[in-house]
Amino acid sequence: MDLMEFWFRSRVIIDELVEKFLKETREWEVMEMSKYIMRDGKRFRGTLMFLFNGALGGEEKNAYPGALATEILHSASLALDDIVDYDELRRGMKAAWAVYTNRKVIFVSNYLIPTALNIISGYGEKALKISVDLWKDTAVGALKDMYGKDDDYVRTVELKTASLFKLPAMLASFSSGKIELLDTLMEIGKNLGIIYQIVDDYVDCVTQDKDNLVGSAKQLFSLTTGRYESYVRLKYNEYKERYIQLVRSLPIDGEYVDQLLALPDFLAFGLIGESGIKNKIF
Amino acid sequence: MDLMEFWFRSRVIIDELVEKFLKETREWEVMEMSKYIMRDGKRFRGTLMFLFNGALGGEEKNAYPGALATEILHSASLALDDIVDYDELRRGMKAAWAVYTNRKVIFVSNYLIPTALNIISGYGEKALKISVDLWKDTAVGALKDMYGKDDDYVRTVELKTASLFKLPAMLASFSSGKIELLDTLMEIGKNLGIIYQIVDDYVDCVTQDKDNLVGSAKQLFSLTTGRYESYVRLKYNEYKERYIQLVRSLPIDGEYVDQLLALPDFLAFGLIGESGIKNKIF
Repeated sequence: MDLMEFWFRSRVIIDELVEKFLKETREWEVMEMSKYIMRDGKRFRGTLMFLFNGALGGEEKNAYPGALATEILHSASLALDDIVDYDELRRGMKAAWAVYTNRKVIFVSNYLIPTALNIISGYGEKALKISVDLWKDTAVGALKDMYGKDDDYVRTVELKTASLFKLPAMLASFSSGKIELLDTLMEIGKNLGIIYQIVDDYVDCVTQDKDNLVGSAKQLFSLTTGRYESYVRLKYNEYKERYIQLVRSLPIDGEYVDQLLALPDFLAFGLIGESGIKNKIF
Repeated sequence: MDLMEFWFRSRVIIDELVEKFLKETREWEVMEMSKYIMRDGKRFRGTLMFLFNGALGGEEKNAYPGALATEILHSASLALDDIVDYDELRRGMKAAWAVYTNRKVIFVSNYLIPTALNIISGYGEKALKISVDLWKDTAVGALKDMYGKDDDYVRTVELKTASLFKLPAMLASFSSGKIELLDTLMEIGKNLGIIYQIVDDYVDCVTQDKDNLVGSAKQLFSLTTGRYESYVRLKYNEYKERYIQLVRSLPIDGEYVDQLLALPDFLAFGLIGESGIKNKIF
Protein backbone atom coordinates (compact mmCIF):
# COMPACT_ATOMS: atom_id res chain seq x y z
CA MET A 1 0.00 0.00 0.00
CA ASP A 2 1.47 3.36 -0.91
CA LEU A 3 1.09 6.43 1.25
CA MET A 4 -1.81 7.80 -0.78
CA GLU A 5 -3.79 4.59 -0.35
CA PHE A 6 -2.89 4.49 3.33
CA TRP A 7 -4.18 8.02 3.75
CA PHE A 8 -7.45 7.35 1.90
CA ARG A 9 -8.04 4.31 4.06
CA SER A 10 -7.25 5.98 7.37
CA ARG A 11 -9.31 9.01 6.40
CA VAL A 12 -12.39 6.83 6.02
CA ILE A 13 -11.78 5.28 9.43
CA ILE A 14 -11.21 8.67 11.04
CA ASP A 15 -14.40 10.03 9.48
CA GLU A 16 -16.25 7.10 11.02
CA LEU A 17 -14.63 7.73 14.40
CA VAL A 18 -15.66 11.38 14.20
CA GLU A 19 -19.21 10.42 13.27
CA LYS A 20 -19.46 7.98 16.16
CA PHE A 21 -18.05 10.58 18.53
CA LEU A 22 -20.60 13.14 17.37
CA LYS A 23 -23.47 10.69 17.76
CA GLU A 24 -22.53 10.15 21.36
CA THR A 25 -22.75 13.87 22.12
CA ARG A 26 -25.91 14.33 24.09
CA GLU A 27 -26.67 18.00 23.59
CA TRP A 28 -28.18 18.52 20.18
CA GLU A 29 -26.82 22.05 19.68
CA VAL A 30 -23.31 21.00 20.64
CA MET A 31 -23.51 18.07 18.26
CA GLU A 32 -24.61 20.25 15.37
CA MET A 33 -21.84 22.76 15.88
CA SER A 34 -19.19 20.13 16.54
CA LYS A 35 -20.25 18.41 13.34
CA TYR A 36 -19.81 21.63 11.40
CA ILE A 37 -16.45 22.35 12.97
CA MET A 38 -15.18 18.83 12.30
CA ARG A 39 -16.48 18.47 8.74
CA ASP A 40 -14.36 17.58 5.73
CA GLY A 41 -10.91 17.56 7.26
CA LYS A 42 -8.00 16.08 5.36
CA ARG A 43 -7.27 14.05 8.50
CA PHE A 44 -3.51 14.29 7.89
CA ARG A 45 -2.74 14.59 11.58
CA GLY A 46 -4.96 11.67 12.52
CA THR A 47 -3.34 9.65 9.73
CA LEU A 48 0.05 10.26 11.33
CA MET A 49 -1.24 8.49 14.42
CA PHE A 50 -2.18 5.46 12.31
CA LEU A 51 1.15 5.52 10.50
CA PHE A 52 3.43 5.77 13.51
CA ASN A 53 1.36 3.39 15.59
CA GLY A 54 1.41 0.84 12.80
CA ALA A 55 5.10 1.34 12.08
CA LEU A 56 5.92 0.66 15.72
CA GLY A 57 3.86 -2.52 15.73
CA GLY A 58 0.82 -1.19 17.59
CA GLU A 59 -2.59 -2.69 16.92
CA GLU A 60 -4.58 -0.42 14.66
CA LYS A 61 -7.52 0.00 17.02
CA ASN A 62 -5.13 1.37 19.65
CA ALA A 63 -4.58 4.34 17.35
CA TYR A 64 -8.28 5.25 17.21
CA PRO A 65 -8.55 7.41 20.34
CA GLY A 66 -5.34 9.30 19.51
CA ALA A 67 -6.36 9.95 15.92
CA LEU A 68 -9.79 11.14 17.01
CA ALA A 69 -8.44 13.38 19.78
CA THR A 70 -5.84 14.87 17.44
CA GLU A 71 -8.50 15.74 14.88
CA ILE A 72 -10.80 17.21 17.55
CA LEU A 73 -8.02 19.46 18.82
CA HIS A 74 -7.03 20.45 15.31
CA SER A 75 -10.61 21.29 14.30
CA ALA A 76 -11.25 23.28 17.48
CA SER A 77 -8.05 25.25 16.99
CA LEU A 78 -9.02 26.06 13.38
CA ALA A 79 -12.47 27.22 14.47
CA LEU A 80 -10.87 29.54 17.02
CA ASP A 81 -8.23 30.70 14.53
CA ASP A 82 -10.97 31.76 12.14
CA ILE A 83 -12.49 33.98 14.80
CA VAL A 84 -9.10 35.41 15.57
CA ASP A 85 -8.19 36.01 11.93
CA TYR A 86 -11.67 37.16 10.87
CA ASP A 87 -11.53 34.46 8.17
CA GLU A 88 -14.99 34.00 6.71
CA LEU A 89 -14.21 30.86 4.78
CA ARG A 90 -12.85 27.50 5.84
CA ARG A 91 -12.57 24.48 3.57
CA GLY A 92 -14.65 26.24 0.94
CA MET A 93 -17.57 26.91 3.28
CA LYS A 94 -18.47 29.62 5.74
CA ALA A 95 -16.27 29.54 8.84
CA ALA A 96 -18.07 28.21 11.93
CA TRP A 97 -18.26 31.62 13.61
CA ALA A 98 -19.90 33.10 10.50
CA VAL A 99 -22.64 30.46 10.82
CA TYR A 100 -23.02 30.14 14.58
CA THR A 101 -21.55 33.40 15.98
CA ASN A 102 -18.33 33.84 17.93
CA ARG A 103 -19.86 33.09 21.27
CA LYS A 104 -21.15 29.67 20.35
CA VAL A 105 -17.92 28.64 18.68
CA ILE A 106 -15.94 29.66 21.75
CA PHE A 107 -18.31 27.60 23.84
CA VAL A 108 -18.08 24.52 21.73
CA SER A 109 -14.30 24.73 21.34
CA ASN A 110 -14.00 25.13 25.07
CA TYR A 111 -15.95 21.90 25.36
CA LEU A 112 -14.14 20.03 22.58
CA ILE A 113 -10.61 20.74 23.82
CA PRO A 114 -10.90 19.16 27.29
CA THR A 115 -13.01 16.39 25.75
CA ALA A 116 -10.09 15.54 23.47
CA LEU A 117 -7.65 15.70 26.38
CA ASN A 118 -9.97 13.40 28.26
CA ILE A 119 -9.84 10.87 25.42
CA ILE A 120 -6.05 11.14 25.43
CA SER A 121 -5.92 10.38 29.13
CA GLY A 122 -6.84 6.80 28.16
CA TYR A 123 -3.17 6.47 27.12
CA GLY A 124 -2.15 7.28 30.67
CA GLU A 125 -1.38 10.36 32.65
CA LYS A 126 2.03 11.02 31.15
CA ALA A 127 0.46 11.18 27.69
CA LEU A 128 -2.09 13.63 29.09
CA LYS A 129 0.59 15.81 30.68
CA ILE A 130 2.58 16.07 27.45
CA SER A 131 -0.60 16.77 25.48
CA VAL A 132 -1.55 19.66 27.76
CA ASP A 133 1.95 21.06 27.26
CA LEU A 134 1.69 20.71 23.50
CA TRP A 135 -1.65 22.42 23.49
CA LYS A 136 -0.16 25.22 25.54
CA ASP A 137 2.58 25.43 22.92
CA THR A 138 -0.02 25.92 20.18
CA ALA A 139 -1.45 28.82 22.18
CA VAL A 140 1.98 30.41 22.59
CA GLY A 141 2.54 29.79 18.88
CA ALA A 142 -0.69 31.57 18.02
CA LEU A 143 0.52 34.55 20.05
CA LYS A 144 3.94 34.52 18.40
CA ASP A 145 2.15 34.31 15.08
CA MET A 146 0.63 37.69 15.90
CA TYR A 147 3.39 39.41 17.83
CA GLY A 148 6.51 37.36 17.23
CA LYS A 149 9.72 38.71 15.73
CA ASP A 150 10.66 37.70 12.21
CA ASP A 151 13.86 36.17 13.56
CA ASP A 152 11.80 33.76 15.63
CA TYR A 153 10.08 32.47 12.50
CA VAL A 154 11.05 28.80 12.82
CA ARG A 155 10.28 28.74 16.53
CA THR A 156 6.87 30.30 15.88
CA VAL A 157 6.15 27.70 13.24
CA GLU A 158 7.26 24.92 15.54
CA LEU A 159 4.96 26.12 18.31
CA LYS A 160 1.91 26.97 16.30
CA THR A 161 1.90 24.06 13.86
CA ALA A 162 4.42 21.38 14.75
CA SER A 163 2.81 20.90 18.20
CA LEU A 164 -0.15 19.17 16.56
CA PHE A 165 2.24 16.98 14.57
CA LYS A 166 4.22 16.11 17.66
CA LEU A 167 0.97 15.11 19.32
CA PRO A 168 0.01 12.07 17.18
CA ALA A 169 3.66 11.03 16.79
CA MET A 170 4.14 11.17 20.55
CA LEU A 171 0.86 9.37 21.27
CA ALA A 172 1.93 6.54 18.96
CA SER A 173 4.71 5.71 21.39
CA PHE A 174 2.03 5.07 24.02
CA SER A 175 -0.46 3.29 21.75
CA SER A 176 2.26 0.92 20.51
CA GLY A 177 3.83 0.42 23.91
CA LYS A 178 7.17 1.84 22.72
CA ILE A 179 7.53 4.51 25.38
CA GLU A 180 11.31 4.44 25.05
CA LEU A 181 10.88 6.08 21.61
CA LEU A 182 8.88 9.01 22.96
CA ASP A 183 11.59 11.66 22.48
CA THR A 184 12.47 10.47 19.00
CA LEU A 185 8.82 10.57 17.97
CA MET A 186 8.40 14.09 19.32
CA GLU A 187 11.43 15.13 17.26
CA ILE A 188 10.01 13.41 14.19
CA GLY A 189 6.70 15.19 14.62
CA LYS A 190 8.53 18.47 15.11
CA ASN A 191 10.47 18.23 11.85
CA LEU A 192 7.42 17.17 9.91
CA GLY A 193 5.30 19.98 11.33
CA ILE A 194 7.93 22.61 10.59
CA ILE A 195 8.18 21.39 7.00
CA TYR A 196 4.41 21.50 6.65
CA GLN A 197 4.04 25.08 7.90
CA ILE A 198 7.02 26.43 5.99
CA VAL A 199 5.54 25.09 2.77
CA ASP A 200 2.13 26.45 3.74
CA ASP A 201 3.65 29.89 4.29
CA TYR A 202 5.55 29.57 1.01
CA VAL A 203 2.26 28.97 -0.79
CA ASP A 204 0.82 32.08 0.84
CA CYS A 205 3.83 34.15 -0.20
CA VAL A 206 3.50 32.98 -3.80
CA THR A 207 -0.27 33.30 -4.12
CA GLN A 208 -1.03 36.42 -2.11
CA ASP A 209 -0.29 40.06 -2.44
CA LYS A 210 2.45 40.86 0.02
CA ASP A 211 0.30 43.43 1.80
CA ASN A 212 -2.28 40.75 2.55
CA LEU A 213 0.18 38.40 4.23
CA VAL A 214 -0.39 37.82 7.93
CA GLY A 215 1.17 35.80 10.74
CA SER A 216 4.03 33.45 10.01
CA ALA A 217 3.70 33.90 6.22
CA LYS A 218 4.29 37.60 6.72
CA GLN A 219 7.22 36.82 8.99
CA LEU A 220 8.71 34.55 6.32
CA PHE A 221 8.39 37.29 3.74
CA SER A 222 9.98 39.95 5.95
CA LEU A 223 12.71 37.67 7.22
CA THR A 224 13.86 36.93 3.68
CA THR A 225 13.07 40.45 2.41
CA GLY A 226 10.86 38.86 -0.20
CA ARG A 227 13.42 36.29 -1.36
CA TYR A 228 11.64 33.47 0.37
CA GLU A 229 12.07 30.81 -2.30
CA SER A 230 15.68 29.91 -1.74
CA TYR A 231 15.18 30.11 2.04
CA VAL A 232 12.23 27.73 1.91
CA ARG A 233 14.12 25.30 -0.30
CA LEU A 234 17.06 25.35 2.11
CA LYS A 235 14.92 24.84 5.20
CA TYR A 236 12.80 22.24 3.50
CA ASN A 237 15.84 20.14 2.75
CA GLU A 238 17.37 20.73 6.14
CA TYR A 239 14.31 19.58 8.10
CA LYS A 240 13.56 16.77 5.69
CA GLU A 241 17.07 15.43 6.13
CA ARG A 242 16.75 15.49 9.91
CA TYR A 243 13.36 13.83 9.64
CA ILE A 244 14.73 11.04 7.46
CA GLN A 245 17.65 10.41 9.82
CA LEU A 246 15.25 10.10 12.72
CA VAL A 247 12.91 7.76 10.86
CA ARG A 248 15.86 5.57 9.87
CA SER A 249 16.84 5.35 13.54
CA LEU A 250 13.47 3.76 14.41
CA PRO A 251 13.33 -0.04 14.83
CA ILE A 252 10.89 -0.57 11.96
CA ASP A 253 10.92 -2.28 8.60
CA GLY A 254 8.73 -3.27 5.69
CA GLU A 255 6.52 -0.89 3.79
CA TYR A 256 6.07 1.44 6.76
CA VAL A 257 9.62 2.66 6.19
CA ASP A 258 8.80 3.73 2.66
CA GLN A 259 5.56 5.37 3.72
CA LEU A 260 7.22 7.33 6.50
CA LEU A 261 10.08 8.40 4.27
CA ALA A 262 7.60 9.63 1.68
CA LEU A 263 5.72 11.79 4.18
CA PRO A 264 7.51 15.17 3.82
CA ASP A 265 7.12 15.27 0.05
CA PHE A 266 3.60 13.93 0.31
CA LEU A 267 2.52 16.71 2.69
CA ALA A 268 4.31 19.43 0.76
CA PHE A 269 2.95 18.13 -2.51
CA GLY A 270 -0.56 18.21 -1.05
CA LEU A 271 -0.24 21.86 -0.06
CA ILE A 272 1.39 22.95 -3.30
CA GLY A 273 -0.96 20.89 -5.45
CA GLU A 274 -4.03 22.27 -3.68
CA SER A 275 -2.93 25.82 -4.35
CA GLY A 276 -2.32 25.22 -8.04
CA ILE A 277 1.16 26.80 -8.03
CA LYS A 278 4.27 25.26 -9.52
CA ASN A 279 6.53 23.26 -7.25
CA LYS A 280 9.90 24.96 -7.17
CA ILE A 281 10.87 23.56 -3.79
CA PHE A 282 11.67 19.91 -4.24
CA MET B 1 -8.23 34.37 63.15
CA ASP B 2 -11.79 34.51 61.88
CA LEU B 3 -12.74 33.69 58.31
CA MET B 4 -12.79 37.32 57.22
CA GLU B 5 -9.23 37.87 58.43
CA PHE B 6 -8.15 34.62 56.85
CA TRP B 7 -9.62 35.73 53.55
CA PHE B 8 -7.98 39.19 53.68
CA ARG B 9 -4.64 37.58 54.40
CA SER B 10 -4.85 34.94 51.70
CA ARG B 11 -6.10 37.48 49.20
CA VAL B 12 -2.94 39.51 49.68
CA ILE B 13 -0.81 36.43 49.14
CA ILE B 14 -2.78 35.41 46.06
CA ASP B 15 -2.46 38.89 44.60
CA GLU B 16 1.30 38.60 45.06
CA LEU B 17 1.35 35.18 43.42
CA VAL B 18 -0.60 36.59 40.48
CA GLU B 19 1.77 39.52 40.19
CA LYS B 20 4.80 37.23 40.23
CA PHE B 21 3.18 34.98 37.64
CA LEU B 22 2.48 37.94 35.37
CA LYS B 23 6.02 39.25 35.70
CA GLU B 24 7.37 35.94 34.49
CA THR B 25 5.29 36.13 31.31
CA ARG B 26 7.71 36.95 28.55
CA GLU B 27 5.44 38.39 25.87
CA TRP B 28 4.53 41.93 26.75
CA GLU B 29 1.12 41.90 25.07
CA VAL B 30 0.15 38.66 26.77
CA MET B 31 1.25 40.04 30.11
CA GLU B 32 -0.80 43.20 29.69
CA MET B 33 -3.95 41.34 28.77
CA SER B 34 -3.46 38.65 31.41
CA LYS B 35 -3.02 41.40 33.97
CA TYR B 36 -6.28 42.98 32.92
CA ILE B 37 -8.12 39.67 32.95
CA MET B 38 -6.78 38.76 36.40
CA ARG B 39 -7.28 42.13 38.08
CA ASP B 40 -9.21 42.71 41.29
CA GLY B 41 -10.61 39.27 41.91
CA LYS B 42 -12.14 38.42 45.25
CA ARG B 43 -9.87 35.35 45.29
CA PHE B 44 -12.53 33.27 47.04
CA ARG B 45 -11.65 30.15 45.11
CA GLY B 46 -7.94 30.54 45.74
CA THR B 47 -8.69 31.14 49.40
CA LEU B 48 -10.47 27.77 49.52
CA MET B 49 -7.18 26.17 48.52
CA PHE B 50 -5.45 27.86 51.47
CA LEU B 51 -8.25 26.90 53.84
CA PHE B 52 -8.51 23.22 52.96
CA ASN B 53 -4.77 22.78 52.63
CA GLY B 54 -4.24 24.36 56.04
CA ALA B 55 -7.09 22.45 57.64
CA LEU B 56 -5.58 19.16 56.46
CA GLY B 57 -2.18 20.07 57.86
CA GLY B 58 -0.48 21.02 54.59
CA GLU B 59 2.31 23.59 54.59
CA GLU B 60 0.99 26.92 53.37
CA LYS B 61 3.45 27.29 50.53
CA ASN B 62 2.20 23.99 49.10
CA ALA B 63 -1.12 25.70 48.48
CA TYR B 64 0.40 28.46 46.33
CA PRO B 65 0.42 26.74 42.94
CA GLY B 66 -3.12 25.44 43.39
CA ALA B 67 -4.47 28.81 44.48
CA LEU B 68 -2.77 30.55 41.57
CA ALA B 69 -3.94 27.97 39.01
CA THR B 70 -7.50 28.11 40.34
CA GLU B 71 -7.57 31.89 40.01
CA ILE B 72 -6.07 31.77 36.50
CA LEU B 73 -8.73 29.30 35.36
CA HIS B 74 -11.47 31.30 37.02
CA SER B 75 -10.34 34.59 35.45
CA ALA B 76 -9.96 33.05 31.99
CA SER B 77 -13.41 31.54 32.21
CA LEU B 78 -14.91 34.90 33.22
CA ALA B 79 -13.18 36.64 30.31
CA LEU B 80 -14.65 34.08 27.91
CA ASP B 81 -18.07 34.24 29.58
CA ASP B 82 -18.15 37.97 28.99
CA ILE B 83 -17.63 37.45 25.27
CA VAL B 84 -20.30 34.81 25.24
CA ASP B 85 -22.79 36.89 27.22
CA TYR B 86 -21.95 40.20 25.52
CA ASP B 87 -21.34 41.62 29.00
CA GLU B 88 -19.58 44.94 28.69
CA LEU B 89 -18.71 45.31 32.34
CA ARG B 90 -16.80 43.11 34.73
CA ARG B 91 -15.89 44.11 38.27
CA GLY B 92 -16.95 47.69 37.58
CA MET B 93 -14.66 48.10 34.58
CA LYS B 94 -14.93 47.34 30.90
CA ALA B 95 -14.86 43.61 30.16
CA ALA B 96 -11.57 42.42 28.65
CA TRP B 97 -13.06 41.88 25.18
CA ALA B 98 -14.40 45.44 25.15
CA VAL B 99 -10.84 46.66 25.72
CA TYR B 100 -8.79 44.18 23.70
CA THR B 101 -11.29 42.68 21.20
CA ASN B 102 -12.70 39.17 21.17
CA ARG B 103 -9.87 37.68 19.20
CA LYS B 104 -7.16 38.70 21.62
CA VAL B 105 -9.11 37.56 24.65
CA ILE B 106 -9.69 34.17 23.05
CA PHE B 107 -5.98 33.97 22.38
CA VAL B 108 -4.92 34.84 25.86
CA SER B 109 -7.49 32.59 27.51
CA ASN B 110 -6.36 29.77 25.30
CA TYR B 111 -2.88 30.41 26.64
CA LEU B 112 -3.88 30.88 30.28
CA ILE B 113 -5.94 27.69 30.56
CA PRO B 114 -3.22 25.16 29.66
CA THR B 115 -0.73 27.28 31.60
CA ALA B 116 -2.85 26.79 34.71
CA LEU B 117 -3.19 23.07 34.01
CA ASN B 118 0.55 22.95 33.64
CA ILE B 119 0.99 24.51 37.08
CA ILE B 120 -1.44 21.96 38.49
CA SER B 121 0.57 19.11 37.04
CA GLY B 122 3.13 19.89 39.75
CA TYR B 123 0.73 18.08 42.12
CA GLY B 124 1.05 14.96 40.00
CA GLU B 125 -0.65 13.49 37.02
CA LYS B 126 -3.78 12.35 38.82
CA ALA B 127 -4.42 15.92 39.96
CA LEU B 128 -3.98 17.02 36.35
CA LYS B 129 -6.39 14.39 35.03
CA ILE B 130 -9.11 15.39 37.49
CA SER B 131 -8.53 19.08 36.73
CA VAL B 132 -8.96 18.53 32.99
CA ASP B 133 -12.22 16.72 33.75
CA LEU B 134 -13.42 19.54 35.98
CA TRP B 135 -12.57 22.08 33.36
CA LYS B 136 -14.52 20.03 30.83
CA ASP B 137 -17.40 20.08 33.29
CA THR B 138 -17.35 23.89 33.37
CA ALA B 139 -17.64 23.87 29.57
CA VAL B 140 -20.58 21.47 29.66
CA GLY B 141 -22.06 23.66 32.39
CA ALA B 142 -21.71 26.76 30.23
CA LEU B 143 -23.59 24.94 27.49
CA LYS B 144 -26.32 23.77 29.86
CA ASP B 145 -26.52 27.33 31.10
CA MET B 146 -27.56 28.29 27.58
CA TYR B 147 -29.58 25.29 26.47
CA GLY B 148 -30.31 23.27 29.59
CA LYS B 149 -33.77 22.36 30.81
CA ASP B 150 -35.14 24.10 33.89
CA ASP B 151 -35.45 20.72 35.59
CA ASP B 152 -31.69 20.28 35.29
CA TYR B 153 -31.10 23.49 37.22
CA VAL B 154 -29.05 22.04 40.08
CA ARG B 155 -26.97 19.90 37.73
CA THR B 156 -26.29 22.94 35.53
CA VAL B 157 -25.18 24.91 38.56
CA GLU B 158 -22.98 22.07 39.73
CA LEU B 159 -21.26 21.84 36.37
CA LYS B 160 -20.86 25.51 35.59
CA THR B 161 -19.91 26.80 39.02
CA ALA B 162 -19.22 24.04 41.51
CA SER B 163 -16.47 22.61 39.26
CA LEU B 164 -14.21 25.52 40.15
CA PHE B 165 -15.00 24.99 43.84
CA LYS B 166 -14.28 21.29 43.60
CA LEU B 167 -10.94 22.16 42.01
CA PRO B 168 -9.20 23.88 44.96
CA ALA B 169 -10.84 21.53 47.47
CA MET B 170 -9.63 18.53 45.48
CA LEU B 171 -6.13 19.97 44.99
CA ALA B 172 -5.83 20.47 48.75
CA SER B 173 -5.89 16.69 49.18
CA PHE B 174 -2.74 16.55 47.04
CA SER B 175 -1.01 19.59 48.52
CA SER B 176 -1.54 18.27 52.05
CA GLY B 177 -0.69 14.68 51.18
CA LYS B 178 -4.17 13.48 52.26
CA ILE B 179 -5.07 11.75 49.01
CA GLU B 180 -7.43 9.39 50.84
CA LEU B 181 -9.73 12.40 51.40
CA LEU B 182 -9.98 13.23 47.70
CA ASP B 183 -13.60 12.14 47.23
CA THR B 184 -14.78 13.86 50.38
CA LEU B 185 -13.11 17.10 49.34
CA MET B 186 -14.68 16.95 45.89
CA GLU B 187 -18.08 16.51 47.57
CA ILE B 188 -17.35 19.42 49.91
CA GLY B 189 -16.43 21.64 46.97
CA LYS B 190 -19.54 20.54 45.13
CA ASN B 191 -21.91 21.51 47.94
CA LEU B 192 -20.19 24.82 48.48
CA GLY B 193 -20.25 25.68 44.78
CA ILE B 194 -23.92 24.83 44.42
CA ILE B 195 -24.75 27.03 47.40
CA TYR B 196 -22.73 29.87 45.92
CA GLN B 197 -24.41 29.76 42.51
CA ILE B 198 -27.92 29.31 43.89
CA VAL B 199 -27.48 32.44 45.99
CA ASP B 200 -25.96 34.25 43.02
CA ASP B 201 -28.99 33.35 40.91
CA TYR B 202 -31.28 34.37 43.76
CA VAL B 203 -29.68 37.80 43.80
CA ASP B 204 -30.24 38.08 40.04
CA CYS B 205 -33.89 37.10 40.43
CA VAL B 206 -34.42 39.72 43.13
CA THR B 207 -32.53 42.57 41.48
CA GLN B 208 -33.36 42.11 37.81
CA ASP B 209 -36.43 42.40 35.70
CA LYS B 210 -37.57 38.89 34.93
CA ASP B 211 -37.28 39.47 31.18
CA ASN B 212 -33.61 40.29 31.59
CA LEU B 213 -32.75 37.06 33.37
CA VAL B 214 -30.43 34.72 31.50
CA GLY B 215 -28.81 31.33 32.04
CA SER B 216 -29.20 29.55 35.35
CA ALA B 217 -30.94 32.55 36.99
CA LYS B 218 -33.62 32.35 34.32
CA GLN B 219 -33.85 28.59 34.86
CA LEU B 220 -34.32 29.16 38.58
CA PHE B 221 -37.10 31.64 37.92
CA SER B 222 -38.93 29.38 35.46
CA LEU B 223 -38.45 26.26 37.54
CA THR B 224 -40.14 27.90 40.52
CA THR B 225 -42.61 29.88 38.38
CA GLY B 226 -41.31 33.02 40.06
CA ARG B 227 -41.57 31.70 43.61
CA TYR B 228 -37.85 31.25 43.91
CA GLU B 229 -37.42 32.48 47.48
CA SER B 230 -38.74 29.45 49.34
CA TYR B 231 -36.98 27.15 46.88
CA VAL B 232 -33.64 28.88 47.40
CA ARG B 233 -34.05 28.81 51.18
CA LEU B 234 -34.84 25.10 51.04
CA LYS B 235 -31.90 24.26 48.79
CA TYR B 236 -29.56 26.52 50.70
CA ASN B 237 -30.29 24.67 53.92
CA GLU B 238 -30.17 21.28 52.25
CA TYR B 239 -26.71 21.79 50.69
CA LYS B 240 -25.37 23.60 53.72
CA GLU B 241 -26.36 20.70 55.93
CA ARG B 242 -24.61 18.21 53.66
CA TYR B 243 -21.57 20.45 53.56
CA ILE B 244 -21.41 20.65 57.34
CA GLN B 245 -21.73 16.88 57.72
CA LEU B 246 -18.86 16.40 55.32
CA VAL B 247 -16.65 18.97 57.03
CA ARG B 248 -17.32 17.34 60.39
CA SER B 249 -16.22 14.00 58.94
CA LEU B 250 -12.75 15.43 58.17
CA PRO B 251 -9.90 14.65 60.58
CA ILE B 252 -9.29 18.28 61.54
CA ASP B 253 -9.56 20.40 64.62
CA GLY B 254 -8.83 23.82 66.02
CA GLU B 255 -9.92 27.06 64.44
CA TYR B 256 -9.98 25.61 60.94
CA VAL B 257 -13.18 23.76 61.87
CA ASP B 258 -14.92 27.02 62.73
CA GLN B 259 -13.64 28.72 59.59
CA LEU B 260 -14.79 25.90 57.35
CA LEU B 261 -18.19 25.71 59.03
CA ALA B 262 -18.62 29.46 58.55
CA LEU B 263 -17.92 29.27 54.80
CA PRO B 264 -21.45 28.82 53.35
CA ASP B 265 -22.89 31.80 55.21
CA PHE B 266 -19.75 33.80 54.52
CA LEU B 267 -19.99 33.27 50.76
CA ALA B 268 -23.74 33.84 50.65
CA PHE B 269 -23.42 36.90 52.83
CA GLY B 270 -20.77 38.25 50.46
CA LEU B 271 -23.03 37.90 47.43
CA ILE B 272 -26.11 39.26 49.15
CA GLY B 273 -24.20 42.10 50.81
CA GLU B 274 -22.57 43.12 47.55
CA SER B 275 -25.93 43.40 45.84
CA GLY B 276 -27.45 45.53 48.60
CA ILE B 277 -30.60 43.40 48.93
CA LYS B 278 -32.05 42.10 52.17
CA ASN B 279 -31.07 38.65 53.31
CA LYS B 280 -34.20 36.55 53.46
CA ILE B 281 -32.40 33.27 53.00
CA PHE B 282 -30.58 32.50 56.21
